[in-house]
Amino acid sequence: MIKVSIIGSGNVAQHLIHAFANENNIEILQVFARNPDDLIDIINPNKIVSDFKYLQKVDLFIIAVSDNSIIEVSAKIPFENCLVAHTSGSIDLNVLNSKNRKAVFYPLQTFSKTKKLNFKEIPICIEAQNSRDYSIIEYVAESISNNVQKIDSKQRKALHVAAVFVCNFTNHLYQVGNEICNENNINFEILKPLIQETANKILLLSPKEAQTGPAKRGDSQTINEHLKFLKNENQIGIYILLTKSIIDNGKKL
Amino acid sequence: MIKVSIIGSGNVAQHLIHAFANENNIEILQVFARNPDDLIDIINPNKIVSDFKYLQKVDLFIIAVSDNSIIEVSAKIPFENCLVAHTSGSIDLNVLNSKNRKAVFYPLQTFSKTKKLNFKEIPICIEAQNSRDYSIIEYVAESISNNVQKIDSKQRKALHVAAVFVCNFTNHLYQVGNEICNENNINFEILKPLIQETANKILLLSPKEAQTGPAKRGDSQTINEHLKFLKNENQIGIYILLTKSIIDNGKKL
Repeated sequence: MIKVSIIGSGNVAQHLIHAFANENNIEILQVFARNPDDLIDIINPNKIVSDFKYLQKVDLFIIAVSDNSIIEVSAKIPFENCLVAHTSGSIDLNVLNSKNRKAVFYPLQTFSKTKKLNFKEIPICIEAQNSRDYSIIEYVAESISNNVQKIDSKQRKALHVAAVFVCNFTNHLYQVGNEICNENNINFEILKPLIQETANKILLLSPKEAQTGPAKRGDSQTINEHLKFLKNENQIGIYILLTKSIIDNGKKL
Repeated sequence: MIKVSIIGSGNVAQHLIHAFANENNIEILQVFARNPDDLIDIINPNKIVSDFKYLQKVDLFIIAVSDNSIIEVSAKIPFENCLVAHTSGSIDLNVLNSKNRKAVFYPLQTFSKTKKLNFKEIPICIEAQNSRDYSIIEYVAESISNNVQKIDSKQRKALHVAAVFVCNFTNHLYQVGNEICNENNINFEILKPLIQETANKILLLSPKEAQTGPAKRGDSQTINEHLKFLKNENQIGIYILLTKSIIDNGKKL
């Protein structure tokens, strides 16, 4: 039985607590939360601490706090030579305080409190300073996910940037689509099968093969009509830039 | 039994042929294809014609050709007063030649030849000049889809623009993610669960509620690090514009 404590009470922390709760070989000993109310109904209140001095020694501390707080939090863990992993996509392993054995435990997914997830399918990108610590992190990660990958800090940063494009920016395009529907009295529901299929297509085709639409076809008449139709400067800017990018991309070998 | 002929042999035509093939109350009488080889293995060769003069009268002609050819093709149908629908998202109903009874039959989906689709889930946006023709179009559309909607030409144009954002532009962002992975020796596979979840999330949450990431959090440190990491001017341009759009959007009520 491996003992794990989680520091943090936000989206990632809550999803991790849920995921570990179903695993017999991992015990969540404690959760550190500045505001214990965040974790009501999620974990036994006796396991919640709000002061670092009450933390007990465990096999692994997982820091699931905002990027800006990782340095500070890793310094406050009241032990030397404990294994401490952060969960951030963009923060280097070396940022963790040097009194700790440093590691990374980065679940590559978009977490919202109200949307349940099957953790088994979430890639967990892990990194550690030595093979023994790597094995512990790997064991813990594999207990909740079937997709555990060794990713170093540089690759993880690239992955985090790529994730911003395929997730955060994509979701924003959904929102622009939603706005255009609202402006024209159309129920956004009608676009959902298209959104699903666009995501499903790349399970079988590369994004390059899957590309369709007026920019891909070089259909300048439709592009001009779309630009005439749009009135919102922001929407026009996005339309022009992404259309140009698709056209330029088509010219590459 | 309603008799339908399809004019065209591209992606949309082929998917429609497959969809109608499974329906007992619709008969595909003929398919017009300039190049019959496109339809090998898809339909009985005796049904294929390559000259408009061999077309027979049917209850409905569906024109599934490129937008630029719709005017010309609708003029070449060798009958007066026949019901003729085009399948384009961006072309007005009135563009069809006036000798026809005009209609629109627009399946709102992204079609690639090599990716099969369940037509039942595809929204079909329909429009006609009178209620009798509308009923025919509706009957044909409902035979292959459970999601048939009355959408006028102005709404359809808005929908087509919105579809470019949520499908074509989204797929291009997948490609940028793929490029960033390739540049950093990461297998693009690792991003696919995130892409799927991003699309699935908006089945439960509005895009605004589902938004996550550094721009949404106003995390300027991570944004600056991402911009420092990116070397490709095109990727940097997209990153800056969409980040600004998310931030501005967060300021709206």
